[in-house]
This record gives sequence, structure tokens and C-alpha cells, in this order.
Amino acid sequence: MPVGTQGSVKTLTPEELACTGTTIILNNTYHLYLRPGPDLLLSAGGTHKFCGWKGPILTDSGGYQVFSLADLNTVSGDGVEFQSHLDGSTHFFTPEKIIDIQKKMGGDIIMPLDMPVPYPAGKMDAQKANRMTINWAKKSLKIFKETPDYHNYSQTLLGIIQGGFFPDLRRLAVEETVELGFPGYAVGGLSVGEPKEIMYELTGLSAALLPEDKPRYLMGVGKPEDLVECIALGIDMFDCVLPTRVGRNGWVYTEYGRLVVKNAEFKDDFTPIDESCGCYTCRNFSRAYIRHLFNAGEMLGPRLASLHNITFYQKLMNEARNAIKNNCFGQWKANFLRHYNT
Amino acid sequence: MPVGTQGSVKTLTPEELACTGTTIILNNTYHLYLRPGPDLLLSAGGTHKFCGWKGPILTDSGGYQVFSLADLNTVSGDGVEFQSHLDGSTHFFTPEKIIDIQKKMGGDIIMPLDMPVPYPAGKMDAQKANRMTINWAKKSLKIFKETPDYHNYSQTLLGIIQGGFFPDLRRLAVEETVELGFPGYAVGGLSVGEPKEIMYELTGLSAALLPEDKPRYLMGVGKPEDLVECIALGIDMFDCVLPTRVGRNGWVYTEYGRLVVKNAEFKDDFTPIDESCGCYTCRNFSRAYIRHLFNAGEMLGPRLASLHNITFYQKLMNEARNAIKNNCFGQWKANFLRHYNT
Repeated sequence: MPVGTQGSVKTLTPEELACTGTTIILNNTYHLYLRPGPDLLLSAGGTHKFCGWKGPILTDSGGYQVFSLADLNTVSGDGVEFQSHLDGSTHFFTPEKIIDIQKKMGGDIIMPLDMPVPYPAGKMDAQKANRMTINWAKKSLKIFKETPDYHNYSQTLLGIIQGGFFPDLRRLAVEETVELGFPGYAVGGLSVGEPKEIMYELTGLSAALLPEDKPRYLMGVGKPEDLVECIALGIDMFDCVLPTRVGRNGWVYTEYGRLVVKNAEFKDDFTPIDESCGCYTCRNFSRAYIRHLFNAGEMLGPRLASLHNITFYQKLMNEARNAIKNNCFGQWKANFLRHYNT
Repeated sequence: MPVGTQGSVKTLTPEELACTGTTIILNNTYHLYLRPGPDLLLSAGGTHKFCGWKGPILTDSGGYQVFSLADLNTVSGDGVEFQSHLDGSTHFFTPEKIIDIQKKMGGDIIMPLDMPVPYPAGKMDAQKANRMTINWAKKSLKIFKETPDYHNYSQTLLGIIQGGFFPDLRRLAVEETVELGFPGYAVGGLSVGEPKEIMYELTGLSAALLPEDKPRYLMGVGKPEDLVECIALGIDMFDCVLPTRVGRNGWVYTEYGRLVVKNAEFKDDFTPIDESCGCYTCRNFSRAYIRHLFNAGEMLGPRLASLHNITFYQKLMNEARNAIKNNCFGQWKANFLRHYNT
């Protein structure tokens, strides 16, 4: 899922996104709650209509942003008070309010308020956040079932697994969250600065314990090689700002690894970013032109790079799906990692 | 002609431009000479190939930019020395060099080095600049004919009429430039701060004296109402950065006048910019969404506004052409100006 933080996958139109092979996008509840606000989105007929994206939308819970982006957050059993990173105004998120906001926004898949911990966090803190997350999950599920929908279609609420960087807490989180009976589960609180082995270990541990017949979603991950590794560990869904964020910075992906296309070495390279890529960028423009656009500060540069990078990610996921269907995922993965320079 | 200053009509792809009804664009010689440079453009196979624009390209002479944007320009009979606005490096443009640069770039229509004067400029200065422009036009035509092409298609060199803000100098400029025998003529040095009546007067005077069977091009103009007025005065071609520049600033055009779509008054206006417009922006997005994009600093905002504005300009020019063909231009013009709030 490409990330449309503020209701737009940065620089791209919905039509272009569809051309990259994207079928579902993520919108950030925290950002859209602050601007333009859930009531405006409701009166627009929901986030789909407002933003013009015709496929499914997943909205996150805002938990991650509140704890990483907002100022001075104060947690109580009822929820979390924070100050907007935009204007310093004070807001209070409860599990119930977060469900109501997401019901108004109208995403197809919505998430309960959760509490990640930074790396490194001690066991006491992780335990407390884990307990809070599970408690909030119960409240979220209750209010989700008890309140009517604003839109004339159903929404799906997933569970989120926290537990910090402690295997026993992750196990406990899986156990208690699965007991609540969600139709799918997200693994949260990872890829926040911990060593990669720890991320892989805890992802694998969580995925292995989660029900096999329910989607498993690793939140906020990651680099192409991370996705490939985590699919091997049992993950089915990902979201990440990386392809668009690095694209805006002049970094583009190829099967051989990342390329800094804005570098001077490409100034007279008239080949496309990737000869084998069929995206609009690679069909029409050279590395030299894209490098010129970045060099000259032209907005078309970030656009063309973002378009290519999302296409790269979607192609990678498509290849992984086909390899799984054809029972050759292990071989495909080894082949990808052999070529791909991390 | 939308303006692709640095080889990109800001925020848009060539494909999108074609969808606005654009058939020809302008590229700035001054900017592309400095970055990425004529030799790079030549080795890319020309500006068309480099930028991916399949229609005709007109390149200006760089004269206007040298005298308005560059630092410390010093004019001699041979040309003009200036310092790059990018890095302060010193360059020397001669009429011959400007032809060579544009031959390398490979635009379909190219322009000779000229010397506009700022408003207000005294008669002595305007006379000197006019004499220089005519002298340079002779040199340009000579070198244009004598030197071979770099690309395997022909290019067309137009003449430029200067003469400052003095009717007799404009008359002299037309007379002497037409005598040189160009296949089309541009009226330059207007819309640089002079009162609108002076601009109209000198445009009308120049256009009336120029040969009726050759294209008449008014450089760097202008607002929608200016275009309509100047067509009435005999002008056939225009270029202007306005639709994209104001679009990036959140201003959009409708048949009733300009609308500042980023204003708060549009925050819950779920209608398109213009109900009657068939552009991608108006078919898919509301004023409220576009206002949100500008408010949130999303690049998609400038994109959608630029796309709409260029479509507006092209539709306006198309209507004018049809009205001329159908012998009802006067009526059409009066009708447009009655509705359009300037």
C-alpha cells in the first residue's frame, strides 16, 4: 500500500497510481483528522470521493503519529492527549473516538488506537503499552460493532499486535488479541530503529503465531529486501512511504538496487532508469532528463521518480505472489536477493 | 504556447499537456543553455527527444532573460556579456552563437537575439536597442542560412519587432525587419510594466503593419482578456507562463474570471473548479479537495491547477479560432468579456 499521508500519495494522481498496479492505498488518520477533519470528509461523501481514489483504502489508527510526531502526549487509561504538530492545538484521542473518526472517513479497512514504544524501551514500558493496546482493542471492537455506519458499505476493523522488543510480550499480545477475534492482524511497533535481526525475529515470531487463514499486515515496512524477507516470514500486507519519499529525493529502484538518479554521473545517460520497466517514466524519459529535472528543481522530477518507484514495488509484490502460487518462492527470493544490491 | 522554462512545463508531463489541447510549447534558450547546456541537448538528439514532447517547440532567443534575469549585462556591437543568475559565471551571447545554440537544441521555430528595453526607457535607449536588434536580425538570418543543421529536419527563424514604447520606432522596426524577409514576426518588448493602453496601442500598430499572410506572435502575453483583445488586433500566437505560474499559487480560471481556489471559502465546496470544463482536474476533483491540497502543501495541488489553467487557455484560443472561421469573432469577444470578471 502506497501511503497517501494527507489524502494524496505525494505528487501522483489516483489514475497514475492505478497504472502502477496499486489496488489499495493507506491514508493517515492523524493527518486527515487535523486537516481537513473527519466531518468535512464525511460531508464530502468519504475519503474515497474526496480524494478520487476508486480502490480500497486502509486508514491507520493515528497511534504511531501521536507518539512520534505530535508534541507532549500524555497517556491515561482512557486515551492520549497530544498537541498538533501543525498549530500546537490540544486534542484527545480515545479508542472510541478513533473508531468514530475512521467511520466518518470511510476507509474500507480501519485500525484500532494502539500504543507503540520507541526503541529501545524497557520491559515495564513495553508491558504497560501492550496492556493498554489490548485494552483499547477490546473497547474499539465493542464500539465498532455497536455504532452504526456513516456510509452505505461495510468497513473492516483489524487487530494490532504490539509488545515492544520482547518475544514473550509479543506472544502474549498475539494470544490476547487473537482471542478478541479480528478478521485480520497487523504487526505494529517494528522498524522504528531496532537492529534488523530483531525486526525479522519479532515479525517471524508474531506471524507464525497469528492465524494462517487471516491476513497478516506488517505496518510501516519497508525496503524492497525487507518486504521479500518478511513475505518469507508469513506477512501478506505492507505499507511504506519509502518509494515516494526516496523518489522525491532523487533515488530510484532497479532490480540491481537503488540508484541516485540525481547524481552527476547520469548527466549524459540517455537510457531509462530500468530498461525492463514498463512504467510511464521508463517508457518516455532518460536518466539524463530526470537528473536534469532534479538539478533544476522541477516538480516533474519527484513525480517521475515516485511513479517509477511505486511501479517497482508493485511489480516486486506481484512477482512474489506469482512465485508463491507456483511453489517457487524460495528460489525467486534467493534470485532477487542475489541481484539486488542492498 | 505553454512555457517549459527549463525543459518542463512546470508540474506536467508531455502526455498531460497534449490532453489540455496544447499542440506547441515554448522552451527558454537562456535557461536550457545554462542547464543542461546545448551540447548535452544535441547529444540527447535534441530538446524534443530529451523532454519527451512530440509536438513542435519554439525556443526564444534568451534576449529577454539576459536583460531581465542575468546580472551585470554589458552590451557591445557584437553581443552581450552577462553573468549567470545560477552561479555568477560569465557568458557572452552573440547573434551567431544564439542561432548555433538553438540549432543544437533543435526547436522547430527559433528566434534571433534581440534587445528589449525596460519601461520606461527614453527614446535614445529605445533607438539604440532597436538599431541593435535589427542589426542582430541581419546577422542571425545570415548565419542561420549559411550554417548546416544539426538535426535531420528544418527549423524556422522568425523576426522580432522591438522599438520600445515609441510608435515611430515600432514602425521603423517593422519596416526594416520585414525587409529582411522572415517567414513570421514576433512583437517583443511589451507587457513589461507599461500601461495596458500602451501595450494595446503598440501591439495593434505593429500587427497592422506586419504582412497579413505571415504569423504574428506577441511574446510573453498574457492574461485571458489580453489574449482576446490582442487577437482582435491581429495577433496569431502567444506564449505566457501565467496559467502555470498562477496555478502553482492556487489561482484557477473560469469563464467568470479568476478564482483563488486555495481560499478558505472553498473548504466545503464539493463542486469542480468549472462545471463546464472537461479537464482531468474538473472531471475528478472538487474545489474543496484542491483547496485542501494547497493548504497541506501537497504537490498534487499545483499539478491539478496548472492542468486546468492550461486547458482553460487552450479552450479559449480554440473558441477564438472557431469564431474567426465563423465570422463572429466580434460577437464572441464581446460575450466573453461581458462574463469574464477581470
